[in-house]
Amino acid sequence: MQLPLKGITVLEFSQYLSGPCAGLRLADLGARVIKIERPLGGEAGRRLAIKDMWVGDDSLLFHTINRNKESFTTDFDDANDRLWLNKLIAKADVIIENFRPGVMDRKGLGYEAVRQLNSAIVYTSITGYGNQGPWKDKPGQDLLVQSLSGLAHTSGNGEDDFLPFGLAMGDYLCGNQAVQAILAALIRRKRTGKGSLLQLSLLESLIDFQFEFFTTYFHSGALPKRSAANNAHALLSAPYGIYQTKDGYLAVAMMPLSKLNEAIACVMLESFDEQDAFTKRDEIKAILQQHLLQHTTAYWLEKGRPLDLWIAQVMNWRQLMEMKGYTDLKMEQWIQLADRKIKTTRCPIRINGQYFLSTTPAPVLGADTQCIKSELAS
Amino acid sequence: MQLPLKGITVLEFSQYLSGPCAGLRLADLGARVIKIERPLGGEAGRRLAIKDMWVGDDSLLFHTINRNKESFTTDFDDANDRLWLNKLIAKADVIIENFRPGVMDRKGLGYEAVRQLNSAIVYTSITGYGNQGPWKDKPGQDLLVQSLSGLAHTSGNGEDDFLPFGLAMGDYLCGNQAVQAILAALIRRKRTGKGSLLQLSLLESLIDFQFEFFTTYFHSGALPKRSAANNAHALLSAPYGIYQTKDGYLAVAMMPLSKLNEAIACVMLESFDEQDAFTKRDEIKAILQQHLLQHTTAYWLEKGRPLDLWIAQVMNWRQLMEMKGYTDLKMEQWIQLADRKIKTTRCPIRINGQYFLSTTPAPVLGADTQCIKSELAS
Repeated sequence: MQLPLKGITVLEFSQYLSGPCAGLRLADLGARVIKIERPLGGEAGRRLAIKDMWVGDDSLLFHTINRNKESFTTDFDDANDRLWLNKLIAKADVIIENFRPGVMDRKGLGYEAVRQLNSAIVYTSITGYGNQGPWKDKPGQDLLVQSLSGLAHTSGNGEDDFLPFGLAMGDYLCGNQAVQAILAALIRRKRTGKGSLLQLSLLESLIDFQFEFFTTYFHSGALPKRSAANNAHALLSAPYGIYQTKDGYLAVAMMPLSKLNEAIACVMLESFDEQDAFTKRDEIKAILQQHLLQHTTAYWLEKGRPLDLWIAQVMNWRQLMEMKGYTDLKMEQWIQLADRKIKTTRCPIRINGQYFLSTTPAPVLGADTQCIKSELAS
Repeated sequence: MQLPLKGITVLEFSQYLSGPCAGLRLADLGARVIKIERPLGGEAGRRLAIKDMWVGDDSLLFHTINRNKESFTTDFDDANDRLWLNKLIAKADVIIENFRPGVMDRKGLGYEAVRQLNSAIVYTSITGYGNQGPWKDKPGQDLLVQSLSGLAHTSGNGEDDFLPFGLAMGDYLCGNQAVQAILAALIRRKRTGKGSLLQLSLLESLIDFQFEFFTTYFHSGALPKRSAANNAHALLSAPYGIYQTKDGYLAVAMMPLSKLNEAIACVMLESFDEQDAFTKRDEIKAILQQHLLQHTTAYWLEKGRPLDLWIAQVMNWRQLMEMKGYTDLKMEQWIQLADRKIKTTRCPIRINGQYFLSTTPAPVLGADTQCIKSELAS
């Protein structure tokens, strides 16, 4: 199958996660993605290690999200380098940059400057907090934006402390939404011939992510109350949550209490009706927790099966990867480096039954500079 | 500005969150989105209330994610209705369905059947666990997929229980990735004239979301260890986390310990060097927590400012919405219903400085059926 974004060239003036994560998806879908890096050290993400893991000179994290890309090194302040860069910009379709507001402008690479070189460019700017207002110059780091956005108040129980999501939610999500914006802008360009400036921020993405909470808050004026225990969504009624069983954990999604009780036969639950599911949420959840502790997870799953009950086992990664339900997804792929292979996950999208796989590793710093210059010269 | 997806027609055979959330983004970006609903009761999401909140006959949640769409009611088993539906399918560009595998096929609306009516259709299938393998018929509900995917093991501290993300992470994310797939397939169709079948699942989206954890686990074979307290990312070293202060909470992102200590002057931290940040993470975080308790959040923010330290206040929604940094983003918009207005959030993407706003509410069930039939007849 011909990859959907074949023929599209993306220049990635990006660092760390949000920009590179957008570039990765575009590369997965068939675009040619060229990282624009400074000659000394390159993209900052090359040095950001997760769990102190390295693959050669670069961090494992860098390899994970920069596979299937090229690297072009250039010194923005060198006049000769700049001529090459300008030629490259003139031929590109998309630019992604995720520096703080003003940085690209100061380098003469802001939208207005780039437009002079290529009026049809789709120029994508990812910031932490938008490009105006009192927060624009704050460090746009994921945990900090989570913390400002209210997101750290969604998980956890009752009056517990603020609790962040244990991964880079804002970066990842904003990168994903940048891809939406870029593809929509390419469709618009095909129809109108016009380029565009796209602006996204981690904060706006995290607010969009919380649209249910925000809309509910606008409507009620009251902050949602997480349940005292077993909270899984502050806006949903009992039994929604994760519960401990005799030997593990069981997730119980939304369902009428009576239907649940048909499967689990908890005498103490019988006195509650559907009206109580919101108003007596804590009480119901506490009773349910005590009841579910009496048997194993497998026992409860078996009880729920005839009713197609919305319940599931709760697993860690090790348990998950042993399951046929996981292996059948074929989510794993190998990246081939010069001297070793790295296993990672694939793009979550399938087209016509095909996965988007690529063994091409993250580029060595500047690996493609000469080759790209030759192309531009010809 | 001409909206990017102007002229694109999307049929939404969807319920609850993941499908409608994809449709919403396409509508935001200018597509015409028509919900295909059964005449009695319509989409199941109309009855799914969050916090028991209703706007007229429909839940507030339904209004939130179905704004700016049309509603076409049809009985799949009625021969006359079916003729109208077939005409509509023949003119559409995109179909989004999120029923369990096999449901659309049984209704004669699977990809192969639809292709006979419209060979250029971009047909999008969202499932819980993929369309094959032992889990395909499980209920594809958000909390259940979170629980199976390992995600409930990322947040929280040390040996704490499994802890789910307090919102519909899988639905929302998979809906966002469906938008990426759809737009990429439209670009491909423009170039090749060919339609396509797109397949996504909540589980694959949640695995992609955890790519850092999965790749690290593939590499090390060991499950990541969350820090005993103040965990914010199991793979990152001290000081990364949220800490209590004298009057609130402070988020502290990644930074060298020595740089942090320049600002906060904690004597007990002086004996640790960068090598200790991973190996003595719990110890360092405990010392830091004790130290930060001595002063207010504002005090620490002030101390960090001269060094541009990666720290931030932690806020709930009420605090956030009082901030100019929030109001300047103009994230809020009003939807105009017949008898009232509802405030909600807007699309997080901007093009050429413009927001995508619309006051058009979620449709009353079947509101557009007659009008659409007239169009098809003409």
